[in-house]
Amino acid sequence: MEPQTDTTRIVISVDAMGGDRGPSAVVDGIVESAEKNPDVSFLVHGNEAELKKLVARRKPLAARCEIRATERVVTMDEKPSYVMRNGAGTSMWSAVDSVRNGEAAAAVSCGNTGALMAVSMLRLRKLPGVNRPAIASAWPSRNAHEFNVMLDMGADVRADAEDLVQFAVMGASYARNALGLAEPRVGLLNVGTEENKGRAELKAAHELMPTAAGISNFAYIGFVEGNDILGDRADVIVTDGFTGNVALKTAEGTAKLVADSLREAFQKTPLSRMAALLAMPSLKRFSRRMDPRRSNGGVFLGLNGLVVKSHGSADATAMAAAINLAIRLARAGFQDRLASRVATALATLQTGETAGSTSSGATE
Amino acid sequence: MEPQTDTTRIVISVDAMGGDRGPSAVVDGIVESAEKNPDVSFLVHGNEAELKKLVARRKPLAARCEIRATERVVTMDEKPSYVMRNGAGTSMWSAVDSVRNGEAAAAVSCGNTGALMAVSMLRLRKLPGVNRPAIASAWPSRNAHEFNVMLDMGADVRADAEDLVQFAVMGASYARNALGLAEPRVGLLNVGTEENKGRAELKAAHELMPTAAGISNFAYIGFVEGNDILGDRADVIVTDGFTGNVALKTAEGTAKLVADSLREAFQKTPLSRMAALLAMPSLKRFSRRMDPRRSNGGVFLGLNGLVVKSHGSADATAMAAAINLAIRLARAGFQDRLASRVATALATLQTGETAGSTSSGATE
Repeated sequence: MEPQTDTTRIVISVDAMGGDRGPSAVVDGIVESAEKNPDVSFLVHGNEAELKKLVARRKPLAARCEIRATERVVTMDEKPSYVMRNGAGTSMWSAVDSVRNGEAAAAVSCGNTGALMAVSMLRLRKLPGVNRPAIASAWPSRNAHEFNVMLDMGADVRADAEDLVQFAVMGASYARNALGLAEPRVGLLNVGTEENKGRAELKAAHELMPTAAGISNFAYIGFVEGNDILGDRADVIVTDGFTGNVALKTAEGTAKLVADSLREAFQKTPLSRMAALLAMPSLKRFSRRMDPRRSNGGVFLGLNGLVVKSHGSADATAMAAAINLAIRLARAGFQDRLASRVATALATLQTGETAGSTSSGATE
Repeated sequence: MEPQTDTTRIVISVDAMGGDRGPSAVVDGIVESAEKNPDVSFLVHGNEAELKKLVARRKPLAARCEIRATERVVTMDEKPSYVMRNGAGTSMWSAVDSVRNGEAAAAVSCGNTGALMAVSMLRLRKLPGVNRPAIASAWPSRNAHEFNVMLDMGADVRADAEDLVQFAVMGASYARNALGLAEPRVGLLNVGTEENKGRAELKAAHELMPTAAGISNFAYIGFVEGNDILGDRADVIVTDGFTGNVALKTAEGTAKLVADSLREAFQKTPLSRMAALLAMPSLKRFSRRMDPRRSNGGVFLGLNGLVVKSHGSADATAMAAAINLAIRLARAGFQDRLASRVATALATLQTGETAGSTSSGATE
């Protein structure tokens, strides 16, 4: 079977197990997504008896959902190295293999991140020339397109200067296809915007970026800081997986603390509870804008195939967001575009050609 | 003159220049603090003519405020190395020197962080045995005491395992004195709570922590994640200055985006604007809890003298918070306690004695 990247009939492979809310939340997410995307079919991997029951009850899935029976599940605390050796036969492994063998255009899983990356690397392999795959996530931001992209969100705790430049190339390609930006603005996360600050690998990457930007049609805007992750100066923020993961969880924790404090403030007195009722439409508008479920889905970049990691505690709405992201990227032919973009950029960077001379900007 | 650490008459040295809002915001901050602390006097460093005018207008400062005339100011973009060579005669240098020569119990400045740390290290010198000083900041949190402490917030972008252990000792001592916690719970910031995750220096520090905890009377709770910075699992979060700075700015950016979105949601329609009026008491209660000005003030730990860095854009309220923090720590005799705590911990760690055998817990 040929790899699926055209728009005729998109197939998405979904790991139904391994999430905190079990397969029913996942199947509900597939339903939400299926209703909006009538041209998409699904391969759903997991416990056959459970899935048969769940799918039978949902009308929109009739004839569009094929169950792939797997006996085993990767748990949240299993080590990636263990899953690499013993993961065959799990729903996660099976979901990724559907991409590997060309049956599906993308795989979506809300299982253990480390294990999913390990299985994806093992089964799909890295794109030629990519040192380190990365996970890209979208964040609510002040930009008109409402989201910024950040990578790496935790594929690996390390990243040297060359890795960071590859992240920029891949992240820009992702932003072009997921956010529809012709020339994404890319910033390198640092502790100050002056050139004399920060770690050695950041200074080295800073020197290499302008060339990569010229080849890959992005605008390199230099160093950015933590507040720019949600700001409007950059569309893509590049950092190592350690810093990206800490920033993500800090932002999630902050947003949740603020929301909880707001709720407490409104529950304090009878008058404030009445005010809250009247303010409900405003508060709902606000909640929707900040809802982390809308931006659920970390995309694995740098592999021979598309894998989307959903939050482990995703409910149906969040799961649907991750599946819709996979569909959007599959429709855009993102995987092929990324592969060609990366190949061109790496070849040009390695042979030291001048910026733009072999650019394939027209294809993306 | 003897160093000031008793409670008889506390003197605080304030750098009035170098902040984004100029000396009048600083002097207003001194007024706010002076009204609450009648037993405190101030040495105010900066442009004599300007300061004379500002101080003369404020009654509460009469006879409690001595102006130290300095001609020069350290600007926000001056490099630390330049200020170290050429900073004598600036208000920042002069403010730190008042601590050095024992005239003041603490110095407060809202100038350039890098320069302030460089001048503080040069003039006050590191405590014996301390490899790397750190900046500790308080964050709003879910804990009953409302704040958590995090360090390093950007004194240095690097920290090895031994540095991280020293940060834990110093941060615990700070939390004891600033937050009044008998046995602070200390967590090490990582990308997962499992022992097999994260960078090499974190794993090494993780091994060393239990011994340090025994000696220094803190509870080591293991690895924590970004969301725990604002949570209730730990009181003190230990990390390197790069990660700490990114997390701080990410949290600030998130809180600001959330607040702005909330404001927008309430301004959308005439009904929502009316609801906002009714909700005002709740919104004010909420704003106060989240107000970053309340936790203004990064404390430099590991030097022979107390220096508090205020946010560069601090207004009078924020400036007063930083000065009040300096006063609180001076009253508690924090500097002497920290010095003895660090000396004991380092000596014990270096000679490999068993936990607690030479602990000076009673003094702190």
